[in-house]
Formats: sequence, structure tokens, C-alpha cells
Amino acid sequence: MERTLDQQLGRIRQSLLKMGGMVEQMIDQAMRGLLEREDAYAESIPRQDLDVDRLELEIDEQCNTVLVRNQPAAIDLRFLVAVMKINNDLERMGDSAVNIAQSVLQLNQEPPLKPYLDLPRMSERAQTMVHQSLDAFVNRDADLAREVLAADDEIDAIYKQLFRELLTFMIEDPKAVSRSLQLLLIARNLERIADHATNIAEDVIYYVEGRDVRHAHKL
Amino acid sequence: MERTLDQQLGRIRQSLLKMGGMVEQMIDQAMRGLLEREDAYAESIPRQDLDVDRLELEIDEQCNTVLVRNQPAAIDLRFLVAVMKINNDLERMGDSAVNIAQSVLQLNQEPPLKPYLDLPRMSERAQTMVHQSLDAFVNRDADLAREVLAADDEIDAIYKQLFRELLTFMIEDPKAVSRSLQLLLIARNLERIADHATNIAEDVIYYVEGRDVRHAHKL
Repeated sequence: MERTLDQQLGRIRQSLLKMGGMVEQMIDQAMRGLLEREDAYAESIPRQDLDVDRLELEIDEQCNTVLVRNQPAAIDLRFLVAVMKINNDLERMGDSAVNIAQSVLQLNQEPPLKPYLDLPRMSERAQTMVHQSLDAFVNRDADLAREVLAADDEIDAIYKQLFRELLTFMIEDPKAVSRSLQLLLIARNLERIADHATNIAEDVIYYVEGRDVRHAHKL
Repeated sequence: MERTLDQQLGRIRQSLLKMGGMVEQMIDQAMRGLLEREDAYAESIPRQDLDVDRLELEIDEQCNTVLVRNQPAAIDLRFLVAVMKINNDLERMGDSAVNIAQSVLQLNQEPPLKPYLDLPRMSERAQTMVHQSLDAFVNRDADLAREVLAADDEIDAIYKQLFRELLTFMIEDPKAVSRSLQLLLIARNLERIADHATNIAEDVIYYVEGRDVRHAHKL
């Protein structure tokens, strides 16, 4: 039986949310692996990433099918374009979670290096941004999307501070170099995850308002 | 006068190639800034990135217009979907070039740290991948796109080796930490640029053959 356009779009929305939930869980577990020094969390990430990759292909396929069969216009078309972009950003967040997990497994082999400074705070903010950007999408909430855009500056500030602190560690103690570097890579991946959440928020605004706000702060 | 669909697609292709050329030049100049220790090259990158950002918006806008007005099917639809994805990858390559330029400006303030190891080779390979992925797109050449996919393994290998060497520098000499770290960040951005070229190659294969090869090596 042929599905109506609305049913198909509803299914695509469900798939995307499922993917969002999976990626959120990956980030959360990768960071738990670090903070609780528990390898098992980190070790499960690559397997979860395979599922995310599979779902990415499925979602793109669903979008293509609807584009070809239904040739939707206006808001439905903007929805599909937004989904394809968000899909891509979620998949890359999954890759970042894999990178974090790799660093965590390295770090857990050595004694912990100081308290992890602002890394947990940075992770918490990044995860909130991811969650809010997806909420904004589901609820067509451009205001919430704008909050996500604003939050990105804070992440960048935490990253810069962490960078300086970790650089100092490395210069002061050669034995801390390898671990500091891994922590820095984790921070970098969190910053990247926040960037992807920002991209999603921009896509939401485009979807809801038909207005492209990308690069608006730079141009 | 209303343009024909072919004319509009031709214009979009031209815009995308223009953007590709701009991004290639940014990467090239950022690396020149490093190898020739010439700040002026690196300093021009953020300005060029603004042009790239603007062009990204224009191209997406052009694609949206065609999608809404012409409701293209089959190969034309695949072309548009590929363009929107490639557009996004090119814009992110531009961001990576900006990151490289920032590191270069830091590095040029201090005496050069050893010869730059495999960094020039890595950059050359990455730039070739970018160029070939765009050539593959223009010429609908799935074989060339597959060559790009194969080349990514080499980039990853060079990156891993560079990582180890720079880590050793950092551990052996605290005065080398800051510079080694900047070189590492440059390598990381080159690796990322190569990843984006890989994405483009995958989009080309999808466009030409209607087959999605993403994650095929992992799944």
C-alpha cells in the first residue's frame, strides 16, 4: 500500500530522532568511559557507530524516495533538505564519539592526569546543545534553535582555556605530554560536536522560517 | 526570461567549480605560508573564507530554487543532492584552511622546528584528492572517484606516523611542545580535508551510478 506523503515524512522524522538518540548515547558513554575510567563504555562505541552509519544511509534513501515519488514543495521540501543535512551532522558526531572513545582507551591505560579540568563541563554543554537542536527540530522551535547558536560561544571559550592549560601541562612535565594530548583531542572533538549541533540549529531555522542564517555572524 | 533546467544545472555546476577552485587555492596558500614562512599568505585566508561562505549560501539557494520550480527527477535530482553535499564539504574544507592558517601564523613567530617531516607530502596528497574528486564530479568519472577513496588510506598512514614523531618531539623537548602541537593540528586539518574529498568522491559515485558507497568499507 502506498503511504501518504505525511506518513512518509513522519517515518523519516522518527528515523532521524532515533539516530539522534543513538548519537547522544554514544557521546555520553564515551565520556563516561573517561570519567569513570571504564573501558567497556568506550569499547562499545565503534559497534554503535556502525548502526548509526547504517541508519544514515537508510534516512538518505528514504528522503530520496520521497523526493522522486512525491516531488514535494515548500515546507515539505525544506523539511527533507534539513533532514539530509541533519542526518549528515549526526553521522559526523558519531565519528567524533568514536574518536573520543579511542582517546579514552589510551588514557585509561595510564594513571589519571589531574582532575579533568573543564572537560566534563564542556561535554555537558555540548550534549545539551545536541539535545536542544533536535528538540528544536521536532517542535519547529526557531527560538530554541537560536539558543543553541548562542551556546556555541561558551563552548569555544572553554576549549580555548583548556587548550592553554593542557599546553602548560605538556611544557612543564614531559611525562604528561601524551595524556594531555589525548585530553586535548577529546576537547577538540567535543568542540566539533557542538559545531555540528550549531549546524543543526541553523538548519532548523531554515526549515521553520525559510531563512538561511548560516555565516550570518561572519558576513 | 525563464532558463531551461539544463541551463540552470549548468550554472550550478559552474558555481560549484568556482567554489572548489577557491578552496583549493586557500589550502595551497595556507601551506605556502608555512613552508615559505610568509605570513601574508596565511593572513589572506579568512577573507577568502568569507567569499566561500557566501558562495555556499548562493549554491544552496540555486539548488532549492530548481528543486521547487522544476521538480527534477532521476539523474538531475541526484545531481542536485550531490551538489548540496559537495557544497557543504567544500565549505568545511575552507574552515580547515582557516584553522591551518591560524596555526601557521603562530608557528611563523618562532624559529622553525626541524624540517616539517611529511607535512608537505601529506598536503600535496590531500590537495590532489580534492582536485581529483572535483574532476570526477565534472566528468562523471566514477573510476577516478574510486581512486580518491583509495588515496585516503595513505593520508591516514602519514598522519599516524606524523603523530608519533611529533609526540616524541614534545616529550623530548619542552621548548618544542607548542610548535609540535601546532604542526599536529595542521596535520589533523589536512587529514580532515582528505576526508571531505573522500565524501565528495562518494557523492560522485552516488550521482553517477545511483549507488551509495558510503561506509561500504566499514559495514
